[in-house]
Amino acid sequence: MRKIGIIGLGHVGSTVAYTLITKGIADELVLIDQNDALCTAEYYDYSDSLGRLDTYTKIIKQDYRALSAADVVVTAFGDIKLLADGGDRFLEYTYNCSQAAAVGKALKAVGFHGILINISNPCDVITGLLQRYTGLSRERVFGTGTFLDTARMQRAISHRINENPHNISGYVLGEHGESQFAAWSTIAVRGIPMFELAEEQDLDLDALDKAAREGGWLVFNGKKYTSYAIATCAVKLVQAVLSDAKLACPASVYLEQYGCHVGYPAVIGKNGVEKINEIPLTPKEQALLNDSAKMIAQKTHDGYLG
Amino acid sequence: MRKIGIIGLGHVGSTVAYTLITKGIADELVLIDQNDALCTAEYYDYSDSLGRLDTYTKIIKQDYRALSAADVVVTAFGDIKLLADGGDRFLEYTYNCSQAAAVGKALKAVGFHGILINISNPCDVITGLLQRYTGLSRERVFGTGTFLDTARMQRAISHRINENPHNISGYVLGEHGESQFAAWSTIAVRGIPMFELAEEQDLDLDALDKAAREGGWLVFNGKKYTSYAIATCAVKLVQAVLSDAKLACPASVYLEQYGCHVGYPAVIGKNGVEKINEIPLTPKEQALLNDSAKMIAQKTHDGYLG
Amino acid sequence: MRKIGIIGLGHVGSTVAYTLITKGIADELVLIDQNDALCTAEYYDYSDSLGRLDTYTKIIKQDYRALSAADVVVTAFGDIKLLADGGDRFLEYTYNCSQAAAVGKALKAVGFHGILINISNPCDVITGLLQRYTGLSRERVFGTGTFLDTARMQRAISHRINENPHNISGYVLGEHGESQFAAWSTIAVRGIPMFELAEEQDLDLDALDKAAREGGWLVFNGKKYTSYAIATCAVKLVQAVLSDAKLACPASVYLEQYGCHVGYPAVIGKNGVEKINEIPLTPKEQALLNDSAKMIAQKTHDGYLG
Amino acid sequence: MRKIGIIGLGHVGSTVAYTLITKGIADELVLIDQNDALCTAEYYDYSDSLGRLDTYTKIIKQDYRALSAADVVVTAFGDIKLLADGGDRFLEYTYNCSQAAAVGKALKAVGFHGILINISNPCDVITGLLQRYTGLSRERVFGTGTFLDTARMQRAISHRINENPHNISGYVLGEHGESQFAAWSTIAVRGIPMFELAEEQDLDLDALDKAAREGGWLVFNGKKYTSYAIATCAVKLVQAVLSDAKLACPASVYLEQYGCHVGYPAVIGKNGVEKINEIPLTPKEQALLNDSAKMIAQKTHDGYLG
Repeated sequence: MRKIGIIGLGHVGSTVAYTLITKGIADELVLIDQNDALCTAEYYDYSDSLGRLDTYTKIIKQDYRALSAADVVVTAFGDIKLLADGGDRFLEYTYNCSQAAAVGKALKAVGFHGILINISNPCDVITGLLQRYTGLSRERVFGTGTFLDTARMQRAISHRINENPHNISGYVLGEHGESQFAAWSTIAVRGIPMFELAEEQDLDLDALDKAAREGGWLVFNGKKYTSYAIATCAVKLVQAVLSDAKLACPASVYLEQYGCHVGYPAVIGKNGVEKINEIPLTPKEQALLNDSAKMIAQKTHDGYLG
Repeated sequence: MRKIGIIGLGHVGSTVAYTLITKGIADELVLIDQNDALCTAEYYDYSDSLGRLDTYTKIIKQDYRALSAADVVVTAFGDIKLLADGGDRFLEYTYNCSQAAAVGKALKAVGFHGILINISNPCDVITGLLQRYTGLSRERVFGTGTFLDTARMQRAISHRINENPHNISGYVLGEHGESQFAAWSTIAVRGIPMFELAEEQDLDLDALDKAAREGGWLVFNGKKYTSYAIATCAVKLVQAVLSDAKLACPASVYLEQYGCHVGYPAVIGKNGVEKINEIPLTPKEQALLNDSAKMIAQKTHDGYLG
Repeated sequence: MRKIGIIGLGHVGSTVAYTLITKGIADELVLIDQNDALCTAEYYDYSDSLGRLDTYTKIIKQDYRALSAADVVVTAFGDIKLLADGGDRFLEYTYNCSQAAAVGKALKAVGFHGILINISNPCDVITGLLQRYTGLSRERVFGTGTFLDTARMQRAISHRINENPHNISGYVLGEHGESQFAAWSTIAVRGIPMFELAEEQDLDLDALDKAAREGGWLVFNGKKYTSYAIATCAVKLVQAVLSDAKLACPASVYLEQYGCHVGYPAVIGKNGVEKINEIPLTPKEQALLNDSAKMIAQKTHDGYLG
Repeated sequence: MRKIGIIGLGHVGSTVAYTLITKGIADELVLIDQNDALCTAEYYDYSDSLGRLDTYTKIIKQDYRALSAADVVVTAFGDIKLLADGGDRFLEYTYNCSQAAAVGKALKAVGFHGILINISNPCDVITGLLQRYTGLSRERVFGTGTFLDTARMQRAISHRINENPHNISGYVLGEHGESQFAAWSTIAVRGIPMFELAEEQDLDLDALDKAAREGGWLVFNGKKYTSYAIATCAVKLVQAVLSDAKLACPASVYLEQYGCHVGYPAVIGKNGVEKINEIPLTPKEQALLNDSAKMIAQKTHDGYLG
């Protein structure tokens, strides 16, 4: 049976939990939040839904020990107030570095040995820290990373040329943050390389890259948080782990050459990151990835509290 | 094809929209909100999800005219700030009475002739006002009403005696508000009448009634709004209309004898409220219903701005 | 993760498997059939579907040992040719008694310790035999029994008076076969007792009982097997076990007083039959149940090969 | 609301109908078959399912006039007995050419003006004939064609190198039949061109091509029909039309240059085939496509009865 934990029930974590319940994905769901009143509120809001759903999920709250046998834990802690007017996910850095220590150690203490999927920002750094604190192997801890930014790139292109986002393949790579970039050499629309299409249709790739990168802030500015798109990304990754889907997608995964987690194509299955999907990049793209990864590696090193 | 509109994109409306998209229920979804930045934000948060979902929904924003051919419109406007510390849904009364006028007239102006499902509070009053302003027939406008409170009653009992909420039948009737009541004579657990069970297992029915009535505030107090349970109720009603399901459930429906909308069992199908499901009540229950309905009728009368 | 086995891939078993795959319910599915060519064919027909589904299921074929850690096994063996022109599920009795021995012993041999849900006919008898051969406790082995016949009763009434079948509560009890009966005293439409409704609307209860009982043959006569309704029943039971739903429904469950499995209301959860839901019956209904159960007990005794 | 018709309720058509019902895709479903007893049997088998499903579908049988306002009609007629020991979809040619005339004219007579998706074999020929008989525009009539064969190619590769079939992009082109071919120059695994991968991993492309082409017969030989994979393909196409998904996929679409329907990449939306997705092919692939299309064109011409 499928047992999943969610740590951090802000807008993102609670939307992930709702989706897992409302789509009948979780058989057992463990909810954890520092704010006990919030956790209780969400617990009842979900419980009040069960009479209207065809599927059933057993919901447990504030019990870390219940995570010891969880298949997957999703971390979505953070402090939205720190983001204030937005613009930089590093505004949550100091706070979340200490949260990662607390959460990671708590998971280790209860013997959690499933797969950890991190959403907390700055995503790549926090994913790396959680891996260290939990003591889980590197392949068992990964982050949503640029899986979301890639969805935003797909949306940006799909809106520009009226396509279904599924028709757009390829990746946004690097940090889930300001140093990310659309790796245009990997991107294609119905098999047609983006470079080719851009020339044909006079598309402004820089503008599309910007639209993807700033997509999150566009949402944030209007509603003061983001929730739905990131939740669908996290849920897709949870499903890939539960069903051992060998899903090929970008995520924040540990790359040996950089010594840190960074958004890069991988294959996700029941063991977490089952493969790094190495892809050719242009020299410019490679340089952007190097820079992004170096920054993440430094920040991860700095943020580790031991 | 299924075309649905959502007016009001607060936590409730946006969760309804998300659910319709993420479960593949809506083919076309029209989003409307007074706050254009918020509407834009939600529009992008949903659009960024499409690349991670197997189903597709065409999303349109801020276009009332697109509602002219909608099958269903869900109204979920309101001003959460007015609820402050909660405790009474009538805190939104004055504001929502004027909103109902604006929204109802706008729907009439574009020729909307589908089914209107209202969530805005005080639900029964606003449902009645929307019916008048839209000029739609009484059976084509109904509210979520005590469909939610009934789910909370099911939850309260299910938690108390460890049952699946689906195993609990019967109704909470009257206002979606403080004058509601669990009609115990209609309620049964796996076919066993609640009165009988209460005696056998020494259950405190007043406490359970209170737990259902105050369930919303329990959630509200912890997260400062409610969203998930009400969204699942609204979505279930939307589905009943779209598929002409003849779903038997309580909802805020127009009762001739009271001259207003009030929470009562009905049958929901493609024409909206297709039948009032008259049920025997005890004299005490009947009196509670009368009182609740009279209050709603008065407040609906008072709130009509012409 | 959810691991399910299907033994017997005729029309019923293969439809159950298809539903578990296409709705994303199974993470791992083990297919077993005596006919290796058939099993291989279904294996490929399912595998060829995976590229068109959003969810993933790992499919394994002809490996009994893979069932040792299965959460649920569904048995759907039988020989459709024996049913010839239909009319009696006992035409498969002798064949399926020996199949039950083979399958039950094979499950025991590999150490299967999950929940067994039997569909094979005569359902109640074979369920009892499988319980003995597997050595599993009585609550861990149950059959679809009159869960299907109850659905047919709901359909018969729903068609007669234009209601959604979900609006009809109550049970068909006894054998999943000719001695079954609609227990009218338990049946209600939107809470209105059937006896009352029958009088009001001049409904012929005997005709409705017959329609439920003969519903299977109506389908059988036209397509020479039945598949879809029974599959939805079995899948609903599988889901109840996986999610520990405490689903209240009729099924073929072991009743101490009869010493056999027979269609009766129960509560289904992760431990199988978690409760027998005892309900009051009229003397006539009680007599019908007694007769039905006695026959099943005798046939189960006779069919046990040791 | 979503209204869908199925003409021909053999294993394929009935599985399509079951999937549309069990996944809650169809709001209204019209079932048509020459064999009235069969149609009645399926009608009841589906109806008996409704009490066990959370969604509702209104089911109508044997009423061609009910198709006049259908959004989509799926044709799945044929005579499985003609296929005998299989090996060639043209064994149904003569029979289905006359069926196409009857069905196409009947649809025209009732004024059907939705989208027609054909499954009947030989798929490309019959699709072309149905377009002529219905008088619908060429973009409104298309067939499942090599959408299924492409799924089989994805499966063949996925099994060979342990990948999720979704990780494999590209197309099988041409006839849904013996002259089809995997267009290797279009095929890639996680973005890696198949030609490259084949060399790296010493993959036998001819064997994989054969596995895709003969996949249907592998299934047919074991169960004497195919059903599940083709049903998932058809359902995916139905959903693309209903939600106007602009789904990029291969299907049997009309190509001007050949004057016939043939398996080729296209974009599917509410208007049917909204775009032909022209792709570069190698000269060898182009020649194979030419040959395949010429045969189809000839057979379509020959099969037209006026």
